[in-house]
Order: sequence, then structure tokens, then C-alpha cells
Amino acid sequence: MKFLIQKERLSKSIQDVIKAVASRTTIPILIGIKIDATDEGVALTGSNSDISIKSFIPKEENDTELVDIIEPGSIVLHARFFSEIVRKLPDSIIEITVDDQFKTVIHSGNAEFVIHGLDAEEYPRLPIIDSEHSFTMPADLLITLVKQTVFAVSQSETRPILTGIHWVFENNELIAVATDSHRLALKKATLQTEFANNQAYNIVIPGKSLSELIKILEDNNQTLVEIFVTTNQILFKAKNLLFYSRLLEGKYPNTAKLIPTDNKTKVKINTKEFLQAVDRASLLAREGKNNVVKFTTMEQNMIEITSYTPEIGKVVEKVKSLSIEGEEIKISFSAKYMIDALRAIDGSEATIYFTGTMRPFVIKTDQDETILQLILPVRTF
Amino acid sequence: MKFLIQKERLSKSIQDVIKAVASRTTIPILIGIKIDATDEGVALTGSNSDISIKSFIPKEENDTELVDIIEPGSIVLHARFFSEIVRKLPDSIIEITVDDQFKTVIHSGNAEFVIHGLDAEEYPRLPIIDSEHSFTMPADLLITLVKQTVFAVSQSETRPILTGIHWVFENNELIAVATDSHRLALKKATLQTEFANNQAYNIVIPGKSLSELIKILEDNNQTLVEIFVTTNQILFKAKNLLFYSRLLEGKYPNTAKLIPTDNKTKVKINTKEFLQAVDRASLLAREGKNNVVKFTTMEQNMIEITSYTPEIGKVVEKVKSLSIEGEEIKISFSAKYMIDALRAIDGSEATIYFTGTMRPFVIKTDQDETILQLILPVRTF
Repeated sequence: MKFLIQKERLSKSIQDVIKAVASRTTIPILIGIKIDATDEGVALTGSNSDISIKSFIPKEENDTELVDIIEPGSIVLHARFFSEIVRKLPDSIIEITVDDQFKTVIHSGNAEFVIHGLDAEEYPRLPIIDSEHSFTMPADLLITLVKQTVFAVSQSETRPILTGIHWVFENNELIAVATDSHRLALKKATLQTEFANNQAYNIVIPGKSLSELIKILEDNNQTLVEIFVTTNQILFKAKNLLFYSRLLEGKYPNTAKLIPTDNKTKVKINTKEFLQAVDRASLLAREGKNNVVKFTTMEQNMIEITSYTPEIGKVVEKVKSLSIEGEEIKISFSAKYMIDALRAIDGSEATIYFTGTMRPFVIKTDQDETILQLILPVRTF
Repeated sequence: MKFLIQKERLSKSIQDVIKAVASRTTIPILIGIKIDATDEGVALTGSNSDISIKSFIPKEENDTELVDIIEPGSIVLHARFFSEIVRKLPDSIIEITVDDQFKTVIHSGNAEFVIHGLDAEEYPRLPIIDSEHSFTMPADLLITLVKQTVFAVSQSETRPILTGIHWVFENNELIAVATDSHRLALKKATLQTEFANNQAYNIVIPGKSLSELIKILEDNNQTLVEIFVTTNQILFKAKNLLFYSRLLEGKYPNTAKLIPTDNKTKVKINTKEFLQAVDRASLLAREGKNNVVKFTTMEQNMIEITSYTPEIGKVVEKVKSLSIEGEEIKISFSAKYMIDALRAIDGSEATIYFTGTMRPFVIKTDQDETILQLILPVRTF
């Protein structure tokens, strides 16, 4: 194998695929990045047990030569070393040569690295995806969809299914739900693709996979993503990029019944002011276990947010709401969950719908009806 | 105690003094920041066993009112909480009130924090410095002096004296030396102040103290620093700032005799090119224990830098030197020490003076005769 390649482009592709490479792995070859040089260009692949990422560098792009293939071939190189070497090479062009014994010479300017590669034949194959059924989504919609839900997945492996985001497609609507059983984030999206009759997907994608995916999509200014789903894999296909993730097995809980449909108190807030007040009130509460603040409706549309930590002290915050309708309420909740929810909603105004001190409450905004956040209160009263 | 204060200015002062506050301390009150409100303004103090920092906020500055003292007094508040609270307060003005029981109310906009303070009488007194003998130094000279030496102090407590920088003042010259016994950094500075006859200082200042000091000087755009030395303390006095450090006890080794005066090989290099080549050559060597690279002079003024790590591979770097005079040389050294030394020298050209494969070598630059770096080779040949 022998080829010349543009340093910056190679470095960018390495940064993308290295996101899938774990520093410790039970399959030793997965510590490497696979390089395939073909007549079309150079493909890099990184993989771990959850995700596989393949980035392609074509021979030419916009009339610029990116790769010059002298002899096609494949090799696996230690991901971290390869990444650091390429980043620090002196010249803008890099020559990579591999001999029969997997000895790899990386040459650039007056620098020459000779490193031991691994046999690419030993590298696991990427999942085979049936390409009959697919649909497309604008990359920015996909990014928003993930950002508005992924923070609510469970960080604990006690119930592995909750570490994923539940995606349900029906007709041309996608509903994404994440919950750690203390709070829930829901986001709806209307897709351009019409699904065929009776064709519906109901899948759970690991939250970590989606977090990595959106980083890569943002880094690459991707515009459109084509999505393929099989029984245990999902493939996101964008320009010069394939991103595979395994799906989580098991039945996702029925979350629809958790969301209250009525309400007894409706409090409309200025998101930013309220968020900052909760953030301050939680400054001392963070030291405690629960990071809990108390929320009390007052006269003249005022809200009082308080927090008390015996060893340190207490905070009282008064915030003016835009309106309070219905019964008075006194409720305690996690400041962190409230801050996460308000950040996800990302509108200047939001409305909190309470159905009582002991019941979950819902946060929505008139400015975007596709998003809903739910938080379970903490029983301190 | 009661006063009003500008939030931004208070926050800045907290950031300065908190550098002296350890998160864990054997003296519980040192986890706090001491606040003294007097008719002149507000002073904050942070302290640990090595350094004490006092930052002063005057009542007025440039015709702007910074502080309004309603009732003078003192209190000690938990440094981290106080810092976070102040930073997040909603209004640009903060009111702080302390009652007889050290209960402290911090009020700003609609937010009110009530925290338990500690008795300022319990806070240790700052060292008393005899103010008869002092000298001044421009802040930027002091910063350069520290930056060009501090990286070479020992990180190990095996010989505590080597964790400090040795300052020797004689006539109007200051010589600063740091060494961890594997390399040495030396910097000379000419001071405006003439010391009196027979008056000489010979002190060792902890490297950590000086690192913190220069951060604060840089943050505050200080121009001039007045320095007071006693037998076991040094005080740096700048505008609205007092920085105390203890001095290290013990005799600093005689380093002058370590520096070779003759040389057998003289290699002049382009600092940047050489530094980048050494950095690349050390990419694989870092995995090994010593981070050692080999340096060999070649024909036609070329230098070859190589590194070999059995499990990973090898690197060969060729760099053109500006000139090579004297005997051929083949020598091994720590890439890290070379990189640190060349960064400290901070000139476009440098000259390396070798006196043999087994002997320490010296790096200097024609562009700045006040700085000298010395590195001990590693015996691999």
C-alpha cells in the first residue's frame, strides 16, 4: 500500500473516527484505526462495541486533489499515535507506505516515522445494513432532536434500556423520548419522508452514540442525513461519513401515561430570569445530596425559590412570573433537572403545569410545541 | 459590619486571593476568605501555609465609587461558596451585612443569601515585614524572570530546597536559578535599585508561590512591584495587592560549578524548527519512561534526531542547523527538558554548547545574554 494525502484532511477524518475508538478494549485490534486505500480514495474506520464510524476522503474534491493512490491496500494503525503523528507532521502532504510485514512508514518533510501496523484482515467487518428502507432528516433537526432529549437519559446501568433514547416513527412523525425515571424529555419532529403503510419503527438508541454523532455532524457542517434501521443496528449516512450504532434490546417503558393531561396551577415564566434564580438558589444546595430547591407561588405573580443547607446557610430568591393561574403551589424539585429542562426548551418564555405537590409537572413553551419536559418533584413537604 | 460593593471588582479580588486558599487545610479557618471593611475600603485575605494574598478595594478609584462602608467590621466566609455566590449574583451592586453571631446576609437584586461566617479574630495574622529594606522591579521583568526558570524546579519533595528558585542579589544584579538536578535554568536581571554596600540577599522562594504570583500580576496588569525580604518571608507589594510567601530553609547547592565554561561542539539552530523536530521525535518516546531522543551531528550542517520505542516504532528527523563547529557529537537527552529550555529561551535562534557525550550541555542565545539553560544527557551510548 502506498499513497500521498493532504495532511489537514487526513487529520480531520482521524478526529472523526477516533471518537469511536476506546483507549481500552477487550478486542486489541480495536485500539487502531483501519485505513483502506482504494482507487476511489482513502477510508478510515474506528469502532468499539457500540459504534463504528467510517470517514471517506475522496481522491478529488472541488477540483482539488486530496489523495494520490500509488498502490491500494489496507492497514490498521494505533489510533492515538497515528492521530498525534499526523497532527504534528511538518509538511502539508503526507506519504504513507506499508510493506508486507505491516511495517508502515509515514513520511512528511524531513520527518520519517516507522511504526508497526496490524493486519487489516483481522479488523471486524462493519454491520451489513439492508438498504431498502431509509429516510432522510436535515442534520440540524437531528442535532436539535438529540440535544433536547439526550441529557435526560439514565447515567446508571441499573436499567440499561433507560440509557438510550426511544425513537418512535409513525406516518411522517418521529417522537423521541429520554427518561432516567426522575425526569423525562420529549421531542417531536415532522419528517419529509412519508413512511409506507404499516411501516413503523420503535427503537432505542444509546444516548452516548447520539452524543458522538451530533458532535461529528456539527464539526463537518453536514446538511442532510440518511437513516437506515435494522433490528439491532442504525446507520446514519452523511457526506463521506457512515455512523453505525447498535440499538438497545428490550422494551422501553410506556412513558405516555406518565405525562399528566390536566393541571391545577399554570405558571408562565421568563426562562432566562427563572433559570438564573434557580441556578443561584442551587449554589448551596449542590453540596447536599439532592440539589433540591423549594418553589412557592406568592401574591402579585411572584415566585419564591428557596434552598436551605444546614451547615452552610440558606438562599431566598424572588422572581416575578409573567402569570400565575389556578391554585397556589409549594413544591420541591431538583435544581439540576429544572436547569437542564429550561436549557433544552431554549425559548424566551416557558409555562410550568403543576397538578399538585406530589405529582410530576410539565414544562412547555408556546414558542415551540414540539418539545415537552417533565420533572418528578422531591417529597420534602 | 455592613457595606455595599461593586460586584465585578469584588469578584476580581476574590479570584486573586482565592489562589492562596487550599480546598483542604489542617487549619479550618483557612478554608475561608477574610473580609475587612474599614473607612478606607474593603480588604480580602486568603492564606495557606506557604502564601498569603491580600487584595484591597479602595472606596473610590478614578472618581468611581467602588465601596460604600456603612459600618466597619470583619468576617471570614467560606472561600468557594463566597466566590460562587458573588459571581452569580444578579445585580451589579452587592450588600453584605454581618450580625453579632457572624450570620452574614449577602443581598443583590431579588436574591438573598444567608450564610454562617467565622470569627475574623480567629484568622491568623499576616507576617510582619520590616519595611526598611526594599527594592522595586518592573512587573514584566519579574514575570519573565519567573517564567524562564520556574519550570526547572524539582517536582519531588525528596530535596525540598530544589522545589524553590534560588535568588541571589548582589550590587544591582539578581541571579535566579532553578534546578531539579537533571537540568538547570538561570536568568540574570539588572535592577534599577542599587543595593547598599555589603547588602546582599541569598534566598530560596517556593516555585509554586512564584507561579501564583505571576498569574495575579498578569491578571491585574501591574506595572511595578516592590519587594521586601526578611529571614523567612518575602513580600511582593503591588497596587492594591500584597503577596507574601514563606522562604525555603536550607542551603541551596552551589550550581555555578556545574556550568561548563569550555565546549567542544557548538551547534547553532533555528529554535522553532528544532523544537518542532524534537517534539515530533518524542511522540513515541513519551510512551517510554525517559522520553529520550538521540541527537547526532551529520555532514552539511545537518542534525539527525531519532527515537526508538521497541513496541511502537521509530522516528528519524533531519533538521538543518545554522552552523556546526567543532567535534562531531552523538548524545541522548530528555526531549521534554529540551522543549522546556527552548521555550524559555524564546529567541528565533539558539546555540547549544556540548563538551562531550557524558557531560552537561548548555543552551544560550545571542539574542538575550541574560538566560542560560543546562541539560544533563542520558547515558544510552
